[in-house]
Amino acid sequence: MNGNAGGEGGMMMEEEEAKMNNQREALQRKKNAILVDGVILNGPVADAKAGEKFVEEASKIIMEEVIKKAADVTEKVCEWHPPEKLKTLLDLELKDTGETHQRLLQFCQDIIRFSVKTNHPRFFNQLYAGIDYYSLAARFITEALNPSVYTYEVSPVFLLVEEAVLKKMIEFIGWEEGDGIFNPGGSVSNMYAMNLARYRYCPDIKERGLSGMPRLVVFTSEECHYSVKKAASFLGIGTQNVYFVKSDERGKMIPEELEKQVQRARKEGSAPFFVSATAGTTVLGAFDPLDEIADICEKHDLWLHVDASWGGSALLSRKHRKLLQGIHRANSVAWNPHKMLMAGIQCCALLVKDSSDLLKRCYSANASYLFQQDKFYDVSYDTGDKSIQCSRRADAFKFWMTWKALGTTGLEERVNRALALARYLVDEIKKREGFQLLLEPEYANICFWYIPPSLRNMEKGQEFWEKLNHVAPIIKERMMKKGSMMLGYQPHRGKVNFFRQVIISPQVSREDMDFLLDEIDSLGKDL
Amino acid sequence: MNGNAGGEGGMMMEEEEAKMNNQREALQRKKNAILVDGVILNGPVADAKAGEKFVEEASKIIMEEVIKKAADVTEKVCEWHPPEKLKTLLDLELKDTGETHQRLLQFCQDIIRFSVKTNHPRFFNQLYAGIDYYSLAARFITEALNPSVYTYEVSPVFLLVEEAVLKKMIEFIGWEEGDGIFNPGGSVSNMYAMNLARYRYCPDIKERGLSGMPRLVVFTSEECHYSVKKAASFLGIGTQNVYFVKSDERGKMIPEELEKQVQRARKEGSAPFFVSATAGTTVLGAFDPLDEIADICEKHDLWLHVDASWGGSALLSRKHRKLLQGIHRANSVAWNPHKMLMAGIQCCALLVKDSSDLLKRCYSANASYLFQQDKFYDVSYDTGDKSIQCSRRADAFKFWMTWKALGTTGLEERVNRALALARYLVDEIKKREGFQLLLEPEYANICFWYIPPSLRNMEKGQEFWEKLNHVAPIIKERMMKKGSMMLGYQPHRGKVNFFRQVIISPQVSREDMDFLLDEIDSLGKDL
Repeated sequence: MNGNAGGEGGMMMEEEEAKMNNQREALQRKKNAILVDGVILNGPVADAKAGEKFVEEASKIIMEEVIKKAADVTEKVCEWHPPEKLKTLLDLELKDTGETHQRLLQFCQDIIRFSVKTNHPRFFNQLYAGIDYYSLAARFITEALNPSVYTYEVSPVFLLVEEAVLKKMIEFIGWEEGDGIFNPGGSVSNMYAMNLARYRYCPDIKERGLSGMPRLVVFTSEECHYSVKKAASFLGIGTQNVYFVKSDERGKMIPEELEKQVQRARKEGSAPFFVSATAGTTVLGAFDPLDEIADICEKHDLWLHVDASWGGSALLSRKHRKLLQGIHRANSVAWNPHKMLMAGIQCCALLVKDSSDLLKRCYSANASYLFQQDKFYDVSYDTGDKSIQCSRRADAFKFWMTWKALGTTGLEERVNRALALARYLVDEIKKREGFQLLLEPEYANICFWYIPPSLRNMEKGQEFWEKLNHVAPIIKERMMKKGSMMLGYQPHRGKVNFFRQVIISPQVSREDMDFLLDEIDSLGKDL
Repeated sequence: MNGNAGGEGGMMMEEEEAKMNNQREALQRKKNAILVDGVILNGPVADAKAGEKFVEEASKIIMEEVIKKAADVTEKVCEWHPPEKLKTLLDLELKDTGETHQRLLQFCQDIIRFSVKTNHPRFFNQLYAGIDYYSLAARFITEALNPSVYTYEVSPVFLLVEEAVLKKMIEFIGWEEGDGIFNPGGSVSNMYAMNLARYRYCPDIKERGLSGMPRLVVFTSEECHYSVKKAASFLGIGTQNVYFVKSDERGKMIPEELEKQVQRARKEGSAPFFVSATAGTTVLGAFDPLDEIADICEKHDLWLHVDASWGGSALLSRKHRKLLQGIHRANSVAWNPHKMLMAGIQCCALLVKDSSDLLKRCYSANASYLFQQDKFYDVSYDTGDKSIQCSRRADAFKFWMTWKALGTTGLEERVNRALALARYLVDEIKKREGFQLLLEPEYANICFWYIPPSLRNMEKGQEFWEKLNHVAPIIKERMMKKGSMMLGYQPHRGKVNFFRQVIISPQVSREDMDFLLDEIDSLGKDL
């Protein structure tokens, strides 16, 4: 039966027994067997009991090896091996015959063992981290139910949940009404927005395409996420037609520079139509001045999109929402609760101010096999035609569960705490010898250099920066191999490699911040 | 503490106790409290023990209410309520304060109760169905680990797993080498392919865009998935520039008609560059004649993409892979193991024959914060820049686990069994009064009308077809309200509403096929 019964060791007896039972049942079925193409079609062939047991056993491993260890700082963030070595440690090759349950459970152990524990309290490497137990339970539910969210008939609950979550997010943006959709990533949300703006600018493009059209131009800051460029490329607009607007020292778009770029595009005879401002840039965590940008967009009739994939969650904090002052004036907003609000990858909403069904008009293809109009319920709930996807995951639900569990107040506390921890780390960096902030952060990205003792008295000339450039990569290698923590580094706009610390999870404490700095010092002081 | 402790009923005592422990710990922490912005930063705030317990309780519900019932045909496929009613049954509104664990677990129960059980043996509504226990365990692992698959440093295992799975899929297509990437849906894979073909046709478009370029034209059959049109719209090519090629009676593209359309495009002075053939169409399950289409593509130097999202899985069956004869000549293939091979939504590969790094050249944006070149390992494993996404799910892993569990032989058996069951159903339909096949199926889609007794002796004129058109929607409404099964219907290319039965899961038996026909008859005989 599916090549999975049998095996050695502790599970053998039970598996053998299950196998024998299966054979008995199969024999019974054969008495009334219907054979087609040599296949017996009576009864289901999948062994449900063995399958359930396997899921139970795997779940135990997940609980022990992932979920429970998420709170344990003494565990390694990752047991690191280079690709070629890891391949020899894992038996990844797919073969003709199946493996026993026992061996599969060993795979589960190994896969977990060699994976990065992004839920470890000292995983600070990306714009997501930590574990949210409520969202996790919701994700287990959707994996088991395996829904696709396009029509009410197959996803009644998840469509209503998405509606409820979008409504609440729209409320926090400050719009009276709006529309939206959850997408597989903020990059995709940014693409949606650009395409939507193009559709509003010239609906004909949907049918006729861009050939023969004037050259469309989009604007964004130098500090924007790279997905704006990818979107321009993918949508046929071209990366050259992304006009990058200068940012100030803190990484914020300079409105006067935007005005200049728009003027330039107009002079060239091209067709400016879209501005993507960023609320929470990827590296520096900077927030563009939305109100001033909105003024320029209004003046020139440009669609204002705010990529708040990272920074949008500050809207939930009464203390910090001023970072996004003016966001209610945007035409569209990308906001990823999977980052600061820990909803699990991916949970990304595109929110649209328009309430004239622009999203649907722009994206619809009216497939008759899904979106029949003679259904017996209100087909306005069949929202799948707003999407570029056909099957689509129930991503809103995991965020809904967390929101239900914590309430708006609890989400607000999370944001406030992460930003207070960031504040603490900044103060510590300022106090400590050998650490230097790049800039005062506005949000949860703390960018800093570690300057090892050998460089501390050196003049800050070319040699200094060249040497400093090698420090972060070496410390990163050492921390990976030790497994003590994970922290990102990058060069950025003329600045040599520096660390970017990102604080998100409520599992993280002040002690982890102290550890982080101690550990960097300990790993790099000989450099 | 996150607003979730406390509550009423059976869990109260434990939750109260946990709450008190938390308060004690909090008090202890306050002795050395570090306050920033009014937030105490010592120790983690998340209550890991309570969180773990919540996940455990929720997992029990999932096991009982979803996984174990997946084998039970006596359960309802769905407890149906119309949108407005369902909203009153569920408390979906998001509030300021959080809910107790007890109430959250009740939500889990309700969410499951009112959701469609796509793993029910009598869910035949979409191109996915059933439950695969191995893939499910893998999905639980990835949800717990919460990886994003872009760089080796954060996803070492899942990148290697993706490599192994792509390699094997490429082998089954019949290519000696190739490249690929897992995407959030077949629609997205089709878009990738179209963009990739465009890039090969004219790499300048990536930077310069389509303005000022000749009018690009793509070809696909009338029976193609609607995503080809969506892709043309999204990529700025325009839906009018999708030239639909006539299909024959069985839904297969007619090669001579493709030749005619290419000639037409050439005469118009436009730029034909891309053909999307379909291997397993959505409604009829038809396979385009790939070898003949490949001849035409070679002759005109057109990129041949095969949308095998649905039919690709037949490649694993030595008996049925001839349906895709010629697929090795394609430049790219979309193949979704989440459909016939039950890997869970979504699991969708785009496979590319090119091995000159076209995928990366076409998609790269070289973000310096992710794809640093001074890393200490082989950065060719940082495959994230091949994608339009930034964060990306570990979708290959769930398919890998199933393949490991069943082996190629086990996967082959699944395909063979599903197609044998389809064969059985076809024979039964032919035998039964009141059932009429639309066409002999090639694959697992069985399209048929149910003709109620009142129409059986009527002349097949306009009145007959008008009346028949109402039959399937009414039976669908009745089966939904009863919850006995789920089966799709649609009108299609001049044919009035008919049922489309899709057979996938090994949980399905011959008895379910008999039930299906009996039930339709029972629900519709009074019409």
